[in-house]
Amino acid sequence: MSRQSPIGIFDSGIGGLTVAHAIKQALPQESLVYFGDTAHLPYGDKSEAAIQAYSVRIANVLIERGCKVIVIACNSASSAAYELLKEYVRHQAHVIDVIDPMVRHVSSQFGGRKVGLIGTKRTIQSGIYTAKMERADPSIQLLPLATPLLVPMIEEGYFNNQISHDVISQYLGDPLFGAIDALILGCTHYPLIRDEINEFFRGRVQILDSTAVVAATLKTYLESAQLLSDAMPTYEFLVSDYTESFEASTRVFFHEPARLQRYPLW
Amino acid sequence: MSRQSPIGIFDSGIGGLTVAHAIKQALPQESLVYFGDTAHLPYGDKSEAAIQAYSVRIANVLIERGCKVIVIACNSASSAAYELLKEYVRHQAHVIDVIDPMVRHVSSQFGGRKVGLIGTKRTIQSGIYTAKMERADPSIQLLPLATPLLVPMIEEGYFNNQISHDVISQYLGDPLFGAIDALILGCTHYPLIRDEINEFFRGRVQILDSTAVVAATLKTYLESAQLLSDAMPTYEFLVSDYTESFEASTRVFFHEPARLQRYPLW
Repeated sequence: MSRQSPIGIFDSGIGGLTVAHAIKQALPQESLVYFGDTAHLPYGDKSEAAIQAYSVRIANVLIERGCKVIVIACNSASSAAYELLKEYVRHQAHVIDVIDPMVRHVSSQFGGRKVGLIGTKRTIQSGIYTAKMERADPSIQLLPLATPLLVPMIEEGYFNNQISHDVISQYLGDPLFGAIDALILGCTHYPLIRDEINEFFRGRVQILDSTAVVAATLKTYLESAQLLSDAMPTYEFLVSDYTESFEASTRVFFHEPARLQRYPLW
Repeated sequence: MSRQSPIGIFDSGIGGLTVAHAIKQALPQESLVYFGDTAHLPYGDKSEAAIQAYSVRIANVLIERGCKVIVIACNSASSAAYELLKEYVRHQAHVIDVIDPMVRHVSSQFGGRKVGLIGTKRTIQSGIYTAKMERADPSIQLLPLATPLLVPMIEEGYFNNQISHDVISQYLGDPLFGAIDALILGCTHYPLIRDEINEFFRGRVQILDSTAVVAATLKTYLESAQLLSDAMPTYEFLVSDYTESFEASTRVFFHEPARLQRYPLW
């Protein structure tokens, strides 16, 4: 592991690309290795044990490639496998999840207020946001809601159309969210419908997505560990199953034809 | 292989249970082995190569269990792997897909008429229904539409609610379907929203799902091959990943606590 070693990032599909994009903006000299586990997409309704097994296999691939940091760019995988991966990877790489940076951010800004949370069934049922927020600042009232149709909707490319409008309105119209001050997007896919969510609340609710806070957490770590790269970056994309929609998405985020390599996990 | 050997049935998730249920109704003495490839659910947006590889591994499991017939209870897998499985399995078991029985049924009933088709991206993009219908009866005008959000919607348990109503209306309101006489449900999940689809068309379009025609095709084969069982049936459910929603669905279809066995494919 050296300053020029790449940052490893993984997710089940395209959601983690929102995190990769934020990292590229904040740290333009860092090389990235992105692993999209498209063969097991989506993670939101897989079992905890299955997500743990996939995460370990992906960590092996990223460590083989010499990654200095592994970013779990997925809330379902962060809730199921963050503690496991820290233990498994140990000194070989630093591990960053997407939940802790958000909890720190919310607890620093929203003490005593009501904050909504949307995410996959796996993330919401794990209760991990509630437990971590309770430890960070018990004065915050967190209101969680599972919104399982949003990931497939986004993966299928439905945003800014009538179907996405209807589905989003149905979910966010839940009475639970009647008096919230902020809403955590507890899934790395959701920044792709951030504008539509903002429109639904007509600007009166602050929308919090984890991409920027995760990129900032990564930057702080690299600075403190003196691991900031000063070279020309390279970008590598690995997928466990090749799909056209994933390739199209990498082009949207990286504005250049990304070469996808198929890397079956099993 | 003997008369008492079980029928093997597979799908990526709960959709194939609609076919299994129809088979249980039509052939109550047949034992069933159901394989739900929940680790790779849904198949609709996986690559053809990946679905072929999963299908071969599942066929191995079903053949190990002595199945006399393998029913591919999934349109995506039927379009990607039917020819492959027939060649791979050869004389070890008879293979039945869900597309050919429907094409035969439609060509016998709807000559010269307009028939809509909805299915996953994989099924629709394969063009397999159009090609087979053209060979069976070129006078039928088939109008295909990919409706990729329906499977995740159904897998998440959204039927008969406002979200399912909105999504179904958006899809079926497509001008393509303005003057159809019948609509093929080209996915084994869709019988679960059959009533809602029927309501949308107010009964003026005949809704065709493959469960009954597949069960009838299987019955005809077992009769002609003298392989009808005359014993007490047993039901076995294998899943590649254990999920609560799959277990709940097996209970809905089989009205008894079904014992799920976890059988990881990789």
